[in-house]
Amino acid sequence: MSRTAYVNGRYCDLRDACVNVEDRGYQFADGVYEVCEVRGARLVDFPRHMVRLQRSLRELQIDEPMPITALAIIMREVVRRNRVTYGIVYLQVTRGVARRDHAFPPSSVKPSVVVTARALDYEKKQQTAATGIKVITLAENRWPRVDIKSVSLLPNVLAKQEAREKGAYEAWYVDSDGFVTEGASSNAWIVTKDGRAVTRSVDRGILAGITRAVLVEVMGALQIRLEERPFTPAEAREAAEAFVTSASQIVMPVVAIDGRVVGNGQPGGITRQLREEFHRFSAFS
Amino acid sequence: MSRTAYVNGRYCDLRDACVNVEDRGYQFADGVYEVCEVRGARLVDFPRHMVRLQRSLRELQIDEPMPITALAIIMREVVRRNRVTYGIVYLQVTRGVARRDHAFPPSSVKPSVVVTARALDYEKKQQTAATGIKVITLAENRWPRVDIKSVSLLPNVLAKQEAREKGAYEAWYVDSDGFVTEGASSNAWIVTKDGRAVTRSVDRGILAGITRAVLVEVMGALQIRLEERPFTPAEAREAAEAFVTSASQIVMPVVAIDGRVVGNGQPGGITRQLREEFHRFSAFS
Repeated sequence: MSRTAYVNGRYCDLRDACVNVEDRGYQFADGVYEVCEVRGARLVDFPRHMVRLQRSLRELQIDEPMPITALAIIMREVVRRNRVTYGIVYLQVTRGVARRDHAFPPSSVKPSVVVTARALDYEKKQQTAATGIKVITLAENRWPRVDIKSVSLLPNVLAKQEAREKGAYEAWYVDSDGFVTEGASSNAWIVTKDGRAVTRSVDRGILAGITRAVLVEVMGALQIRLEERPFTPAEAREAAEAFVTSASQIVMPVVAIDGRVVGNGQPGGITRQLREEFHRFSAFS
Repeated sequence: MSRTAYVNGRYCDLRDACVNVEDRGYQFADGVYEVCEVRGARLVDFPRHMVRLQRSLRELQIDEPMPITALAIIMREVVRRNRVTYGIVYLQVTRGVARRDHAFPPSSVKPSVVVTARALDYEKKQQTAATGIKVITLAENRWPRVDIKSVSLLPNVLAKQEAREKGAYEAWYVDSDGFVTEGASSNAWIVTKDGRAVTRSVDRGILAGITRAVLVEVMGALQIRLEERPFTPAEAREAAEAFVTSASQIVMPVVAIDGRVVGNGQPGGITRQLREEFHRFSAFS
């Protein structure tokens, strides 16, 4: 089946889904995005993603292209046309098309909106979760505004590629003080030997993950203790469990860091519990 | 007259010049670019730009899309079709179109190539050079790989916009040691009271500017003394002259830094001389 995309007002075959070469997303990485999980053909935690989108747009002074209710209709329609029951829907908003010039174009230039959706293999994802993933660590080298979910992702591309070349799936950035910030496309977590979940607070150096935020609520409900503080790769390697969170991974166990196994090399019990319980606490749209 | 662009094998009206929404340049800023000055309908210092392009591609492990001789033909043809005698030609190469995934796609995915060209107003540019431009300074906040001329330019966009909002044209980044690195789209220079030109060396923190490199040769020929070392905004404000270099600006006088006039507030004599003599030392293709 061919895939369908939405681009600036029309639905079309993904192969024909084009943006102008002078779209500022293409020439300047001047745009933002969101990825929502799709489950049971519904959008997971959509309102929270839209709050974050609005914040990203505001930080970059990009106009909201349309009301959130309209975006919701489009995103659901793209999911429907692609017959996605389990997968992801991707939304990108850029500052629009204008003659190349770094500074912002006139306000008459309207933002571009692109939506795509893709089915993921649920069984395969579950199998990955059953064995867990490996991560590497590398020096933080992104600009400080990682709190904005922008498409300025070249450092993340190189980090993920380095992970893949080392037989791992994700790369954790380590800041100049020696603490893990986050993964190249996920938030980073560990579980201490006495059962406390640890992840960096969102005030500095990381994106405020939606899955991360929901998981904090899940932990409250399940009475799992949470510590929001930075941790080092050394602490992580000695931890009982480790995992990453993102919209497409939800809670994904980490079983090795830089080639050293975490815990007994199997997904941890608290991690598995969090993965299983997560969607009880999700909002479905 | 409508403008013409080249996109992946064909010439078309710029308004119809499109790339797929899954082009990695659009979703990941996973691409590089070059801008050449066009003068007398010829490309200025084209071979040097191509050497830098090849280096940028190599650093990102993006395949060269075609031989440089073929790129030259295309770039000249875009210049010709747009009837540019004075202006710029823009080349962008990205890692190509692939299903969204941070890590590199299979090697079967071919790079995307986009070329556009645009006439600039020569008289207006000369007028700007006659009065000079203003710059602001701000904290360096780009990733460390600014030696790669990538389209990951969102920090530069915000810097140029901040400059514009403060009535300036360019923004100079200042590193954590208090030294100017470079401008958001140019290299930064000063001239000391005893006539020495000062600019940061290319080994760290800046892009190896082509105009910068040619200007170093010009200075040698004109017996203008050169010091390749960092300087602070304070030294720049007290300097006799200041200027920026880039392919579209060549040598552009700076007459104010953060609202303080440089020298007597007029373009400096050495700066003017360098601007006038520059193209005697350029290679025209």
